[in-house]
Amino acid sequence: MIISGSSLIPLEEIAAASPQAWFQAYLPGEPDRIDALIDRVAAAGIGTLLLTVDTATLPNRENNVRAGFSTPLRPGLRLAWQGISHPRWTTGTFLRTIARHGIPHFENSYATRGAPIISSNVTRDFGKRDHLNWGHLERIRKRWSGKLVVKGIMHPDDAARAAVTGADGVIVSNHGGRQLDGTASPLQVLPEIAARVGDSIAVMVDGGIRRGTDIMKALALGACFVFVGRPFLYAAAVAGLPGVLRAADILRTELHSNMALLGVTRVTDISADYITRA
Amino acid sequence: MIISGSSLIPLEEIAAASPQAWFQAYLPGEPDRIDALIDRVAAAGIGTLLLTVDTATLPNRENNVRAGFSTPLRPGLRLAWQGISHPRWTTGTFLRTIARHGIPHFENSYATRGAPIISSNVTRDFGKRDHLNWGHLERIRKRWSGKLVVKGIMHPDDAARAAVTGADGVIVSNHGGRQLDGTASPLQVLPEIAARVGDSIAVMVDGGIRRGTDIMKALALGACFVFVGRPFLYAAAVAGLPGVLRAADILRTELHSNMALLGVTRVTDISADYITRA
Amino acid sequence: MIISGSSLIPLEEIAAASPQAWFQAYLPGEPDRIDALIDRVAAAGIGTLLLTVDTATLPNRENNVRAGFSTPLRPGLRLAWQGISHPRWTTGTFLRTIARHGIPHFENSYATRGAPIISSNVTRDFGKRDHLNWGHLERIRKRWSGKLVVKGIMHPDDAARAAVTGADGVIVSNHGGRQLDGTASPLQVLPEIAARVGDSIAVMVDGGIRRGTDIMKALALGACFVFVGRPFLYAAAVAGLPGVLRAADILRTELHSNMALLGVTRVTDISADYITRA
Amino acid sequence: MIISGSSLIPLEEIAAASPQAWFQAYLPGEPDRIDALIDRVAAAGIGTLLLTVDTATLPNRENNVRAGFSTPLRPGLRLAWQGISHPRWTTGTFLRTIARHGIPHFENSYATRGAPIISSNVTRDFGKRDHLNWGHLERIRKRWSGKLVVKGIMHPDDAARAAVTGADGVIVSNHGGRQLDGTASPLQVLPEIAARVGDSIAVMVDGGIRRGTDIMKALALGACFVFVGRPFLYAAAVAGLPGVLRAADILRTELHSNMALLGVTRVTDISADYITRA
Repeated sequence: MIISGSSLIPLEEIAAASPQAWFQAYLPGEPDRIDALIDRVAAAGIGTLLLTVDTATLPNRENNVRAGFSTPLRPGLRLAWQGISHPRWTTGTFLRTIARHGIPHFENSYATRGAPIISSNVTRDFGKRDHLNWGHLERIRKRWSGKLVVKGIMHPDDAARAAVTGADGVIVSNHGGRQLDGTASPLQVLPEIAARVGDSIAVMVDGGIRRGTDIMKALALGACFVFVGRPFLYAAAVAGLPGVLRAADILRTELHSNMALLGVTRVTDISADYITRA
Repeated sequence: MIISGSSLIPLEEIAAASPQAWFQAYLPGEPDRIDALIDRVAAAGIGTLLLTVDTATLPNRENNVRAGFSTPLRPGLRLAWQGISHPRWTTGTFLRTIARHGIPHFENSYATRGAPIISSNVTRDFGKRDHLNWGHLERIRKRWSGKLVVKGIMHPDDAARAAVTGADGVIVSNHGGRQLDGTASPLQVLPEIAARVGDSIAVMVDGGIRRGTDIMKALALGACFVFVGRPFLYAAAVAGLPGVLRAADILRTELHSNMALLGVTRVTDISADYITRA
Repeated sequence: MIISGSSLIPLEEIAAASPQAWFQAYLPGEPDRIDALIDRVAAAGIGTLLLTVDTATLPNRENNVRAGFSTPLRPGLRLAWQGISHPRWTTGTFLRTIARHGIPHFENSYATRGAPIISSNVTRDFGKRDHLNWGHLERIRKRWSGKLVVKGIMHPDDAARAAVTGADGVIVSNHGGRQLDGTASPLQVLPEIAARVGDSIAVMVDGGIRRGTDIMKALALGACFVFVGRPFLYAAAVAGLPGVLRAADILRTELHSNMALLGVTRVTDISADYITRA
Repeated sequence: MIISGSSLIPLEEIAAASPQAWFQAYLPGEPDRIDALIDRVAAAGIGTLLLTVDTATLPNRENNVRAGFSTPLRPGLRLAWQGISHPRWTTGTFLRTIARHGIPHFENSYATRGAPIISSNVTRDFGKRDHLNWGHLERIRKRWSGKLVVKGIMHPDDAARAAVTGADGVIVSNHGGRQLDGTASPLQVLPEIAARVGDSIAVMVDGGIRRGTDIMKALALGACFVFVGRPFLYAAAVAGLPGVLRAADILRTELHSNMALLGVTRVTDISADYITRA
């Protein structure tokens, strides 16, 4: 599991409960803040640091504008009505969280606690993220002795540079298609990236994985691992932890069945030979 | 006609009524069960054995999950309501069948009678079907002296291996698209398979045949014979035997009309010259 | 204008009113009937005979089945209701026609009067149209001294053979897509046909012409003339003769405007240089 | 900003308020009128003249026919109702305009005032625009000493001829797709035009620009500048001047964010390397 830099529980608590978890960081182009967060992550005993590089700035997400979503959330009539009209969530999740932790904050953005998730006048500090460059990655590599993964790579040249800079892996990703509209899909660019750096570092992928055959397609196109986001969030929203376990079980079962139908017995045997271009 | 391994009437009865019928077997990777079923089929006087090889395991058929369909069917309120709300089927088909045969069983899965079609606690025995391999096909070929057809071929290499193993024919099929989602269509892979083995064994096809022009497309792309499933099932559901005869007549008439419009007078004259790629 | 072999007014009357009109024949593969109709057309003073060759047989037109359309029409409740619910048509067109001509018949199918258009027990005589072959075309060419056009050509080889047999022109047509489902469109096959025979005979086209730019596309792809059917029928149904004149005027004006926008001043200047493939 | 030849405020007033504005002319193929308008534009101190060449004639704009739109507008019940049902526009825009300027006229079509925008019996004088040819462009070039831009170019040959004739730039445009239906899109033809004349004159584009990524696509395909029409008209209709400023701000912000996400820091760095063909 990957702990998000946007999660509301301090990474130290999660790392204690799940020692294998990776930590995903949104880092600004500011050396002091970079160093402080790396030291914090290292102190928490995290083994793998994942740096997201496709969020240099926030785009114009029209679905968020339409839904009135922002970070922090702005209190208001609309938000109040959404709480009233979803009583199970309000009592079982929201009030329970307040009772336990108080108003949640973005705990893991930097070395110190971030903004609260609801506020009428606080601006979330996104830092000078748009100034993050390859020099910062070199700095991170020098300071961080664990495994280092770069997420948000969409071009073979960038993958090659990440490998040369010392990354142990890349995640081919367009951030779920929510950053730069009209961008290519990860599966489109995956084969060329895997061909370029797949022999030297781990090439992983996320985005659009919804079924067992999606996993197989990604593996066949050169990924060695696949990440899944929304299906688990949807499952959690519908049925909490049992929902997430069920979602994982559906994917696992589908992958096994589909491998049997394809006639392969090892995940590593899934190759481009099994893919036909439309 | 092909007797399904899932049909509810013992193959011996059907073979007695229709001596030319083929028998289609779902076989597990278990030599004892294979031998026993082959001997049973041979004893029934069946001339052609068809081995389905694309059902190594059951996939996650979401339409079945949504419709509440399983084998055996689980009794319950929903099933009861469907019976009540379809009185003609319930009295004319279901109760009449019970009166004549008792609760139907999967009669032809193996050498012995299989599970009943409705049960709240019986699991249908699908056997170790996922361990079926080319070695089993060789075993079948040695024991079975009649015509042998392999159904569910989607790759020229597999067609070639079936031919070398002694199959008399293959049916290019993706099981109506219900097994591995995202798989190619039979018409997409048919030309290459026909080019590889069409001179030595019979290359047939099923899947998606709904009209006379569909038959012509399959023949033009290299098939020597075409199978049709759902149209006859739908016709039977709507109008019983007269419905099936009418469906067959529609297809026959369309094929004849379309050949006249194309200007060919023999089925065997339908070639790739008459096909244009979109 | 082309007089249809299915029209309900004797060709002699139309030819007298419109001496330039062509006559379109559906001919059976029966020399006697062929000769008789040719002699009748010649006697009427028609200058151009157009032979339709893509109606060897009637296909399974499901839209006709659904709409309850057949020739002759079968009297019945449905037909009666359609008459009652369209009083303007019933009085202004149907009853007026009965009053003037009696029940209309297919006047021009053969040398003698054909079936009435409404009958509960008469079968329309479509003749042995499916036996029409190139030998019959040679026979027609020998007997017919006027201009001869073959309609329904979709392959360069057929166009070449028509030219060799002495046809003065061909109409590239798939009969409005109503004969062989899944057939190519006339515009798809037009360029190759024009390239093969466009220098020696007239290559014309019909099917799908609805706007001025459709005409320009056909001309750019090699046609020297374009025929239009349904737009004029729709216009006649909506507004009678003034509707047809208006439809023709719209097409003419659009063609002129579009040529001005394209920068060509003569219809013959419209060439493939002005077409871009999608 | 470009002053339209169809605008209702005299170009002299706009030029006084916005000295950098260009003037866009719809010119007939009549030397006298051409000379007179050029002299008027020059006298107004305009620095750049833009000649639209894709409106040789008005096409059959069916959306205008359906909406009852014409120039001049014809007074009638429908128009009256639209005014009554949009009181804010009627009082805030229409009546206010009448009070200030009287009934608006097409002020800038020619050297003299044009038709009023509402009239039941006046025909707008579109001139012999369809006779405009390259000779007229040469004449304009000789008489006009400012910058000269040709708008409505869709073919590399025309772009090359415009450059040879002395144009300082071209706008690749299909007039928003409203002139010749079925025409190519500007982005389809832009790369070839940019390759041909991009080194010698300015290649600009309009049509379909709605988002920041649209601007980036146009720049990546070879444009050095992009024009936007409807988004500003819609914004003006919804919220007047503040709406237009907001629309411009959205486009500017999107362009900046998208450049940051793409990793480019200068507009001129956006090249074809950043584009993938679907």
